[in-house]
Amino acid sequence: MTSETVSHAQLANAIRFLSADAVQKANSGHPGMPLGMADVAAVLFTRFMKFDADQPRWPDRDRFVLSAGHGSMLLYSLGYLLGYRDVTREELENFRQLGHVTAGHPEFGHIQMADTTTGPLGQGITNAVGMALAEKMLAARFGGEVVDHFTYVIAGDGCLMEGVSQEAISLAGHWKLNKLVLLWDDNEICIDGKVSLAQSDDQILRFQASGWNTIAIDGHDPVAIAAALEQARSSDKPTMIACKTTIGKGAPTLAGSEKTHGAPLGDKELAGMRDALGWPYAPFEVPDDILSVWRAAGTRGSAERLQWEKRVDALPADAKVTFVTSLQGRIPDATDAAIDAFKQKMAADTPKVATRKASQMVLEAVVPTIPQIVGGSADLTHSNLTITKDMKSVLPTDFTGNYIHYGVREHGMGSIMNGIALHGGLIPYGGTFMVFSDYCRPSIRMSALMEQRVIYVMTHDSIGLGEDGPTHQPVEHLASLRAMPNLRVFRPADPIETAECWQLALQWTHGPSFLALSRQNLPTVRTYTKENLCQLGGYVLSEPEDGKRDVTILASGSEVELALKSQVLLNAVGIKAAVVSMPCWELFDAQPTTYRKAVLGDGLRIAVEAGSTFGWERYVGLDGAVVGMTSFGASGPADQLYKHFGITAEAVADIAVARLKQNA
Amino acid sequence: MTSETVSHAQLANAIRFLSADAVQKANSGHPGMPLGMADVAAVLFTRFMKFDADQPRWPDRDRFVLSAGHGSMLLYSLGYLLGYRDVTREELENFRQLGHVTAGHPEFGHIQMADTTTGPLGQGITNAVGMALAEKMLAARFGGEVVDHFTYVIAGDGCLMEGVSQEAISLAGHWKLNKLVLLWDDNEICIDGKVSLAQSDDQILRFQASGWNTIAIDGHDPVAIAAALEQARSSDKPTMIACKTTIGKGAPTLAGSEKTHGAPLGDKELAGMRDALGWPYAPFEVPDDILSVWRAAGTRGSAERLQWEKRVDALPADAKVTFVTSLQGRIPDATDAAIDAFKQKMAADTPKVATRKASQMVLEAVVPTIPQIVGGSADLTHSNLTITKDMKSVLPTDFTGNYIHYGVREHGMGSIMNGIALHGGLIPYGGTFMVFSDYCRPSIRMSALMEQRVIYVMTHDSIGLGEDGPTHQPVEHLASLRAMPNLRVFRPADPIETAECWQLALQWTHGPSFLALSRQNLPTVRTYTKENLCQLGGYVLSEPEDGKRDVTILASGSEVELALKSQVLLNAVGIKAAVVSMPCWELFDAQPTTYRKAVLGDGLRIAVEAGSTFGWERYVGLDGAVVGMTSFGASGPADQLYKHFGITAEAVADIAVARLKQNA
Repeated sequence: MTSETVSHAQLANAIRFLSADAVQKANSGHPGMPLGMADVAAVLFTRFMKFDADQPRWPDRDRFVLSAGHGSMLLYSLGYLLGYRDVTREELENFRQLGHVTAGHPEFGHIQMADTTTGPLGQGITNAVGMALAEKMLAARFGGEVVDHFTYVIAGDGCLMEGVSQEAISLAGHWKLNKLVLLWDDNEICIDGKVSLAQSDDQILRFQASGWNTIAIDGHDPVAIAAALEQARSSDKPTMIACKTTIGKGAPTLAGSEKTHGAPLGDKELAGMRDALGWPYAPFEVPDDILSVWRAAGTRGSAERLQWEKRVDALPADAKVTFVTSLQGRIPDATDAAIDAFKQKMAADTPKVATRKASQMVLEAVVPTIPQIVGGSADLTHSNLTITKDMKSVLPTDFTGNYIHYGVREHGMGSIMNGIALHGGLIPYGGTFMVFSDYCRPSIRMSALMEQRVIYVMTHDSIGLGEDGPTHQPVEHLASLRAMPNLRVFRPADPIETAECWQLALQWTHGPSFLALSRQNLPTVRTYTKENLCQLGGYVLSEPEDGKRDVTILASGSEVELALKSQVLLNAVGIKAAVVSMPCWELFDAQPTTYRKAVLGDGLRIAVEAGSTFGWERYVGLDGAVVGMTSFGASGPADQLYKHFGITAEAVADIAVARLKQNA
Repeated sequence: MTSETVSHAQLANAIRFLSADAVQKANSGHPGMPLGMADVAAVLFTRFMKFDADQPRWPDRDRFVLSAGHGSMLLYSLGYLLGYRDVTREELENFRQLGHVTAGHPEFGHIQMADTTTGPLGQGITNAVGMALAEKMLAARFGGEVVDHFTYVIAGDGCLMEGVSQEAISLAGHWKLNKLVLLWDDNEICIDGKVSLAQSDDQILRFQASGWNTIAIDGHDPVAIAAALEQARSSDKPTMIACKTTIGKGAPTLAGSEKTHGAPLGDKELAGMRDALGWPYAPFEVPDDILSVWRAAGTRGSAERLQWEKRVDALPADAKVTFVTSLQGRIPDATDAAIDAFKQKMAADTPKVATRKASQMVLEAVVPTIPQIVGGSADLTHSNLTITKDMKSVLPTDFTGNYIHYGVREHGMGSIMNGIALHGGLIPYGGTFMVFSDYCRPSIRMSALMEQRVIYVMTHDSIGLGEDGPTHQPVEHLASLRAMPNLRVFRPADPIETAECWQLALQWTHGPSFLALSRQNLPTVRTYTKENLCQLGGYVLSEPEDGKRDVTILASGSEVELALKSQVLLNAVGIKAAVVSMPCWELFDAQPTTYRKAVLGDGLRIAVEAGSTFGWERYVGLDGAVVGMTSFGASGPADQLYKHFGITAEAVADIAVARLKQNA
């Protein structure tokens, strides 16, 4: 896309100066990477990327992931140069300022060009694997006529050092995601100094060990960059292009030094860079001839996009409806009907099953209604019960399946699910043991921050898992996840609540849901209601006939049964108790004060949960009590553990009796 | 160590039957791995491992890490056979029962043979890298005469799939930890089925890419196993031995199937196995001739141990004292003196510095007093300020240093620190941005569960970090970590509190500490006290002269300054406020009720913290208020963010005024 009068160097230098000047003006940010990768980015965006700056969310655009998110000015410079409407010169001049789209790190939903939020290293490359996988899966469903795009990633040494990148690299190689191209910014510099301080890996060999195509080039040579991209695009494997670059390329005295990584270059260095690169223009000024070449590149995909729209229109009617509905993320009405029928059946059958089993029963009912659902597990399929009879495994040779074997890679699973959700067209859920939610916590946080519908199916949710012991027993996890903004933590008590929580998770398009499910069997405690009671977050499950109560017992999940037993014990000694089921604090806290007060009651409140007591004071106050865990668990049969840790109906009743006596 | 009458097969089969029978009796557990790796374990323990079952904690013993911790019966069978006193036949018969040392997964501190707790996959291999590194570092300090041992790991496919294993493999290769030997149980089976469902990596190539020596053998051939171990022990690189095995080896119909992984074999299969392997003995019975060979192996290291003790005795007096003190984990008295002097100086100087900077100033004072301290950072050394002027980097060519460049590997850093602490002789601390504590959360949990003195130095602890934005701003982290058992979360307010928190972290030998430190500058708010006030967890920093108060403002870290400003604002409108600094909830909660009540006061309580409000209800109750975060942060200058999110002295004062009016 270079014109007769504009050189590649000028195109790349436009990125360099916009980036360095914005960091300088903000007096904060990371110039080194944008300067180092400007040549690669210029070639990629002016000659290879398929996109249309006028329609940034075109579903079949090539995806671009700046995994090294600290180099955000690279993306913003590109956005401005290519003519994305949200990145104005004013936004560049307000880099890293509150209320502007040009945030410190690229944020999905804030800036049109960001296909994902990056900054936490290793996340981007793993999201990209999810995007490339989603492309394969959708292409297998709807055909290459309407789904056919590449996913490009720029990653630095930091991304490749993070363990999650290995999970991503391994899976991408396994699945042969040949439309994934990773551009490694091989600049030999990390924050502490030379990469060789902390790394001696042969990255080429590492990627080859996972089945990747590899190419090594001079990352400042536009001809080599273009040739490598051409070769990558025709590979039958994912491709890693090792781009040997100089960090801070162009800075006269600091290029090649870690000093350019995370601090402004300084006025003097910038002036020297202007001299060295022959760039006499003021900060944020790009000469018209250079800008016009960039702007032309920004919309060169328009024609292709219009042709794509025609091809979508030409899809068979059924396929078109499914395709469009899937891209819009709508859940079919049939799903709600299936949930309702399931609830009625459970109310009639009153089975005693673990909520992980109940979850599988729900999935058996709803998966056939949702063509875009994609299940999976981190190698615990038959423990998490995340698969249904009709689900089919996704294989390197066949992407028509709807079930993903992630291997023992919880972190990768979470971040790949984020990539799938961000791509659009599919709704991912994935399972592991709840204690290992710690492994994918960085992914869960990104799901929440990016407001993505990703469903974490976390089983074995307390000491109730028994013999596997404290390494496998979640204790602090419910509290620690409830503390996370924009994450809904569900802990259903029985099959009916499980169905309701699944319904809420599927319907919520603006954030992730976390289902905490029991290993052990639980009775059906709910009766059928047309209304989804779990959407209230907490509700009175059982109360004295006259509605008057001395004490309210709050519980979630497996402890709701225990709370009901306490209620009986208390009734026997003349104390009236109500039991409140609290499957989702986040939803309960969103209810009107009057509702919450009515549910919680005026009297003594006691919470019981086989997890950390931490946080329950929000509901029971300083006068109430919490029966729960204050230490790690232990290895033994579940019923013995409940007694050992004092989480019993008797303990709850005893505390109620003692407190009421004390307060009388 | 096979005798004339006892074959290798008999030694290995003793492991197989003890393991399978124990799982059968418990009706719970994982027989597949112990059966598959029995041959490797028998050769390793009867012929190579240096240890003494009579003195299980001998500091210079070879370390053994069963990274595939679900195969715990392998370890327990070995323990019984080798004559470790804690693993009696009764304990084997009570596998996975409450109150017995034979827990579902091997737990450090419960069973003498467990050099670490394993179960969460990938942790063990990474701990082992920490142990092997510690060996190198101590050998460099005290000489190979007294520090000279190997570290052996058994890891399965699950461990190698976990991303953290890549961080470990990469660092082990980088450091050329040639006394680390990883035995890969290459059985091609994972829980979901064949490993090939989720993995196509060439593991040999992968390890070679990280600079490892690799050997591939038949894992059931004792000659090959011994030859490989010999070769490994003479390598100048870490060695990975790929042991091709059959999972559930010996089970007549189930061997080679994932069905042997995590469930009892069943009586019929066990009977068939007895026939097939010629093992007519009852469950838990090992014939005397076989047992006596094993028992002899258990104490064959005694003589070597006694010689080692002599060599320790022969160390120069100074070196001996340092060596023994380091192994005992004692902090020198000089450290306390240095802290006290530092506090006095700060009280005089009253600097305005970030607590990350204050932490570095503390380190400058204390590091010279503690020979066994080992610092480090996940490639954020000059942001975390974890290094001091005199610290020296640990290099592959020189292990005399005391500062570790972990690279961008937070998870690896945490688990390597666990390995260093478990090894003994060194006290590790390591830094990263606090938001990335999520990445090493599984390690933090293991530090807490294993009660290890590992110090997490987590800087940039709130929205106060400013421009880097929400991906880098911790919000839910304080709450989520406070919910974790046996972890002390410290958030000091100024240099004096920072010194006190460091002192507490160094002194506590039974668990990890987490220091949450500010990026932004904070005034010195404390005066000098001889007593370490932070050890109370919370204390009255400032109160009205007459001791009477209308409101108590609770705060930690950077918000203590804000609380003091609120106090002034309230005083101006005639409201008397006390300010309580709460640097450590865990310690505060451990104080007597009377103390806690006195500190918290009877009146209105308002908490302010630039983190999630979650959990503060424990102190402020239902009538109080919490000023904090209820969403993710944003990118912008710190002072603007505080205003944007309503975390200001004015907001606290306004709420106090409104509540007091309401309650009046």
